[in-house]
Amino acid sequence: MTVVLGPNRYGKAETRLVRVTRDGGVHHLKDLNVSTALSGDMEDTHLTGDNSAVLPTDTQKNTVYAFARRHGVDQIEEFALLLARHHVGSQPSIRHARVEIEEYSWDRITPAGDPGDRRHSFVRSGAGVRTCVVHHDADGRTTVVSGLADLTVMNTTGSEFHGFARDEYTTLAPATDRILATAVTARWRHASPDPPPGGSYAESHAEVRRCLLEAFAQTHSLSLQQTLYAMGRRALETRPEICEVRLALPNRHHFPVDLEPFGLDNPGEVFYAADRPYGLIEGAVLSEGAPGAGFAWD
Amino acid sequence: MTVVLGPNRYGKAETRLVRVTRDGGVHHLKDLNVSTALSGDMEDTHLTGDNSAVLPTDTQKNTVYAFARRHGVDQIEEFALLLARHHVGSQPSIRHARVEIEEYSWDRITPAGDPGDRRHSFVRSGAGVRTCVVHHDADGRTTVVSGLADLTVMNTTGSEFHGFARDEYTTLAPATDRILATAVTARWRHASPDPPPGGSYAESHAEVRRCLLEAFAQTHSLSLQQTLYAMGRRALETRPEICEVRLALPNRHHFPVDLEPFGLDNPGEVFYAADRPYGLIEGAVLSEGAPGAGFAWD
Amino acid sequence: MTVVLGPNRYGKAETRLVRVTRDGGVHHLKDLNVSTALSGDMEDTHLTGDNSAVLPTDTQKNTVYAFARRHGVDQIEEFALLLARHHVGSQPSIRHARVEIEEYSWDRITPAGDPGDRRHSFVRSGAGVRTCVVHHDADGRTTVVSGLADLTVMNTTGSEFHGFARDEYTTLAPATDRILATAVTARWRHASPDPPPGGSYAESHAEVRRCLLEAFAQTHSLSLQQTLYAMGRRALETRPEICEVRLALPNRHHFPVDLEPFGLDNPGEVFYAADRPYGLIEGAVLSEGAPGAGFAWD
Amino acid sequence: MTVVLGPNRYGKAETRLVRVTRDGGVHHLKDLNVSTALSGDMEDTHLTGDNSAVLPTDTQKNTVYAFARRHGVDQIEEFALLLARHHVGSQPSIRHARVEIEEYSWDRITPAGDPGDRRHSFVRSGAGVRTCVVHHDADGRTTVVSGLADLTVMNTTGSEFHGFARDEYTTLAPATDRILATAVTARWRHASPDPPPGGSYAESHAEVRRCLLEAFAQTHSLSLQQTLYAMGRRALETRPEICEVRLALPNRHHFPVDLEPFGLDNPGEVFYAADRPYGLIEGAVLSEGAPGAGFAWD
Repeated sequence: MTVVLGPNRYGKAETRLVRVTRDGGVHHLKDLNVSTALSGDMEDTHLTGDNSAVLPTDTQKNTVYAFARRHGVDQIEEFALLLARHHVGSQPSIRHARVEIEEYSWDRITPAGDPGDRRHSFVRSGAGVRTCVVHHDADGRTTVVSGLADLTVMNTTGSEFHGFARDEYTTLAPATDRILATAVTARWRHASPDPPPGGSYAESHAEVRRCLLEAFAQTHSLSLQQTLYAMGRRALETRPEICEVRLALPNRHHFPVDLEPFGLDNPGEVFYAADRPYGLIEGAVLSEGAPGAGFAWD
Repeated sequence: MTVVLGPNRYGKAETRLVRVTRDGGVHHLKDLNVSTALSGDMEDTHLTGDNSAVLPTDTQKNTVYAFARRHGVDQIEEFALLLARHHVGSQPSIRHARVEIEEYSWDRITPAGDPGDRRHSFVRSGAGVRTCVVHHDADGRTTVVSGLADLTVMNTTGSEFHGFARDEYTTLAPATDRILATAVTARWRHASPDPPPGGSYAESHAEVRRCLLEAFAQTHSLSLQQTLYAMGRRALETRPEICEVRLALPNRHHFPVDLEPFGLDNPGEVFYAADRPYGLIEGAVLSEGAPGAGFAWD
Repeated sequence: MTVVLGPNRYGKAETRLVRVTRDGGVHHLKDLNVSTALSGDMEDTHLTGDNSAVLPTDTQKNTVYAFARRHGVDQIEEFALLLARHHVGSQPSIRHARVEIEEYSWDRITPAGDPGDRRHSFVRSGAGVRTCVVHHDADGRTTVVSGLADLTVMNTTGSEFHGFARDEYTTLAPATDRILATAVTARWRHASPDPPPGGSYAESHAEVRRCLLEAFAQTHSLSLQQTLYAMGRRALETRPEICEVRLALPNRHHFPVDLEPFGLDNPGEVFYAADRPYGLIEGAVLSEGAPGAGFAWD
Repeated sequence: MTVVLGPNRYGKAETRLVRVTRDGGVHHLKDLNVSTALSGDMEDTHLTGDNSAVLPTDTQKNTVYAFARRHGVDQIEEFALLLARHHVGSQPSIRHARVEIEEYSWDRITPAGDPGDRRHSFVRSGAGVRTCVVHHDADGRTTVVSGLADLTVMNTTGSEFHGFARDEYTTLAPATDRILATAVTARWRHASPDPPPGGSYAESHAEVRRCLLEAFAQTHSLSLQQTLYAMGRRALETRPEICEVRLALPNRHHFPVDLEPFGLDNPGEVFYAADRPYGLIEGAVLSEGAPGAGFAWD
C-alpha cells in the first residue's frame, strides 16, 4: 500500500512576549502570546528527515522578539501581518504562514497624588482576551480575522425558551424567564487585509466588542441562537470593515434551586451555576455578498 | 446592508456518563464524555426566536442517558453512531449530527486473595484518552474518526535535528542527540462507516495505538515531522480499515542544562522540561486513493 | 499496634451560588463559590460507619441556597458567619465550622440610551477574586479573614535585585532595573469578628485592596520581600480593623531577551514571560500586639 | 502603630527536572517537579531591601540541576533531604529548608522483537503522582512525609450512606447502594528521617500505595469517612516505618439518572458524574504513641 503526505504545518506556539515602550517615565505595555505556523515544501523532512526547507521553530520565536524590538508592537493584527509576510517573503520553501496572537489587557495603577510623569505600574484587567489570526501565502493572498475570547456575560432576565421541538426524551419545561449566561468567543473577518478605513484596528476592535455586548444586553432572547444572530448582525451593520462574524456561545446554565422543601419560594433569585454539561451554540453571520473566506478560518 | 445566517450548529457538550454493567458480582465500567451537535433547518430560531425546529440540548443529554440504559455502551464509535442516526432519523428539522466522545480508561483493583466473583473496584488509568467523532447526515452519509489524546511519550536519545534552513534570526545549534518528547493527539479516519472487518473498534483502536507507540519508539528521528510521518504510515500500513491519520505533536522541549559554571559536564543527563513556547507539528498521512473525507474532520 | 483518629473535617466544597436581587427592573448580582467544612464528634462514622453525628454535605449545600433566599447575600464575610454559626448552633455534634467563600465580580453593561430602570445585563470583571475564610466554634470563638486572589500586577521599572548571598551555584547577575510582576494572593485577619467599625466589609475590602495596589506601585523595590512587607504594612497602617496580613507572591519572571545576535540592543523593552520555575515569596506582617490568631489560618 | 514581620519563607517553585541515566543503550528516567523554600534571618530584605542574607531563588534552581548531575536522582525523599541539608548547612542565614517534590511516572515502550540492550522510549503513566515534603532545620531536626496525589478510584457498589443526622434543610435520601469515587491525595509521615529499615523509599511507597488501594477496594463503606479511616489504618498496620497518614478525599458524586420519564428503570447502571459541588472528607490517622509532628505538615 502506498502512503502519501497530506496537509501539514509546523511552527512555534505560545511565544510569550511582553513589550515595554518607555516614553520618559511613562511606560506603555503590550502583553502577547504569539503562535506562528508555516507550511510549504515540506515533503523531505517528513519522508527522509532532510530539513533543508525547515526554518526552525526556534527561529520563529527569535523573530517574534527581534521584530518586537525593531518594529515595536502596536495593533496585534499589524504585528501578525508583519510576521506572516516576513516568513513567506524571506524563505522560498515557505508558501503559507498563519499567525495567531492573543493579547492580555492591563490597566494602569494610578495612586492619587502620584506624579503623572512616572507611570509604570499596571494591574491585569480580566474582562476578556483580544485575539487575531492572520494568513498570508506566497500568491499574495491575505486574510485578517480579529476576535475576543473569555468575555463572560449574563442577563438575569429577558430570556425565554419555549415552543421547542419535543420527542420521547424531552422533559425540559418551557421557560419564560431564565438567566442567560455565556462566555463569548467571537471572531470576525475583515473584508480587506488593509487596515480599517478611517480608523484603526484598536477602534475597530473596541467598537465590535461594544456591539456584541450591547446586542447581548438589548436583545430580549427567545433562544441563545437568536441572541447569537443579533450580536453578529449588530456588529456587521455597525462596522462596514468586517464581513463575517463567527460566535461560539456556551450556554452556562444557571438552574433555579427548588426551595420548596424548605418552605421557601424562589422567584428567580437563587440559582445553581452548573459546570457540565452545557449547551453550545455556534454560528456564523455574514454580510450578503461577503467575499469568499478562503483560508481565513483554518 | 443585508445580513445572512451562515453555517451553524448547536448541541449539548460534555455530558458525563458512567455506565456500569453488572455481571453478577463482576462489574464492568464505561466512563464517557459525550458531546452532540445538531444542524438543519435552523433559520427561524436565529432570526425570530421560533424554536419549533429546535430539539432542546437538554433532550440530547437525556437521550445519551436513556440510550446508555436501553442499548448499553460497548465501543464509543458504535454508541456515537447510534446517537447520530437517532437524531437525524427522528427529527425532520435535523439534517446533520456530529457526536464526539471521550473515553477514560480504568483498571481493576484486584487485591491478592479476593474472590474472583466480586469485582467492582477500579483505579483510573492515566495513559491517554480514547476519542471518536462521528458525523451522519440526512442523505445517509456517515463518517467515523477514532483517536486518542494526552498520550505523552519520550525518547531520551535517537533524535537529531540539523541541516535546517537558516536566516538572520537563526541561533539554534544543530543537535545530534536530543530528547524528543510529545503529547500525542491522533485521529484516524475509517475507510467505511461499518465496523472494522474481522475485528472490532476495540481491537482496531488498540492496534493503531500500538503502531503509533512503536513507530515513535523505533524511528531514529531527524525531525519531529519525520517521526509524525512514520507514526501515521505505520498505522496505515498495518490497519487496512483506516485511510487517513492526522497527528498534532507538540514538541515538549527538554533543554540540556549548562552545568559548566559548576564545574560539571552534562552528557545528555540533566534536562530542563520547558512549558512555553513549544514547537507544534501537525500533519496528515493518507493511503493513496483514500476516499474523500467529506465532513469527517469538521 | 493501635491506631487512632487524628484531626478531621468534612463538608461540601464549591457550592456555586448566583443570587439575584430584583429591585424593580434593576437587578443586583452576587456570584459566589461556597465551601463549608464541619468537625466535631466524628469518631463513630470513621470507626464504625455510624453516621448519626454526620449532617450530610448535601444538607450543607441546601443550607447555602436556602440561606441565600431567606437572608439575602450582601457581604461574603457576613454570609459566611451566618452559615458557620448556624451549623455549630443547630447540631450538637458539630463543634467547629469553617466557611470559605470566593466572590467573582461583575460590572454592569449599560448601553448608551438604555433606560436606567431596566438594568439586568452584566459582564464578568476579571481583576481578581474576593475571598474570605470564617471559623466559628462551639465555645463561641470566631475569626474572620478576608482576602483576594488572582490579582496580577506589574512594575515595568523601579525594581532591583543585587547584593544577595552567593555560593558556588550562584550565576545570577545583579539587576538594577528589572520587571517585577506577581499574581497577588492576600489574606488579612480582622482584629474582631464584628463588622469593621464605622464602615462595612465592602469598604474595608476596597480600601485594603487599594492599599496593596498602591504600595506595590509606589515601592521602589530592592527585593520582592521588601515589596511584600510594604504592601502588608500599608494595609495595616491604614486600616485599624485588621491586625495581620499574609501574602503569597509568585515572582512571575520576565527575562529580557538577548537580541545581540540580531544586531539589536534591548534597553528594557523586550521580555520573555516565563511560566516555570518561579520564585515564590510568602510572608506575614502583623500589628504589634495583635491578638492571637487561634484557628484563623487553618 | 508598629508593624512587625511574621513567619515568612521564600524559594523557587516548580523547577522541572528530567534526569536520564544511561546504562549503555538502556536509559533510566526520572521526571520531577522540585520546589524549595528557605527561611531564616530575613528581616533585612523585608525591611530595608538588604539582600545579603538572601540566597537567590535562581541559585536554588541551579542547585537542583547541579545536584541531579553530581549525586544522581534515585528516591525523591533522598534527593529532597540532600537539597534541604545542603541549603541549611551551607548558608548561615538559612535556618530552615522545606523541599517538596512531585514525581511523574513513565513506563517503557517495548516493541516486540526490539533488542533488550536498546531501551530509551517511554510513555507517561497516568495513575497518580508520587510526592514528598521534607523539612530540615539548623537544629538538626528533620521530617519526611511521602505521598501520592491524583489517584482516582471508584467502587461501583459496596457503598452505603444512611442513618445520618437530619435538620430542616435535609432532603438527601438514604442510600444502600451507591457509587463511591474519589481522587486520593494521601501523605504519610515517616517515624524517622532515616530510610525505611530493611527496605527503601521505593518499596515503602509501593506498599503504602497498595495498602490504600486495597483498603479502598475491600472496605464495605457506610461513609467515606469510614473508608478514609480504613485506608489510613491499613497503611499504618502494614508499614511500621510510618506513624501518621493524612488523607483528603473529594467525594466525586455519581448520581443515578432518573430514567422513569422514558419508561426505563435504572438498577444502578447509568450515572451522571458531577463536577461541583463535591463532598470533601479530610482526616488523619495515627499510630498510638506516634512522635510529635513538629513542622512536618507545614
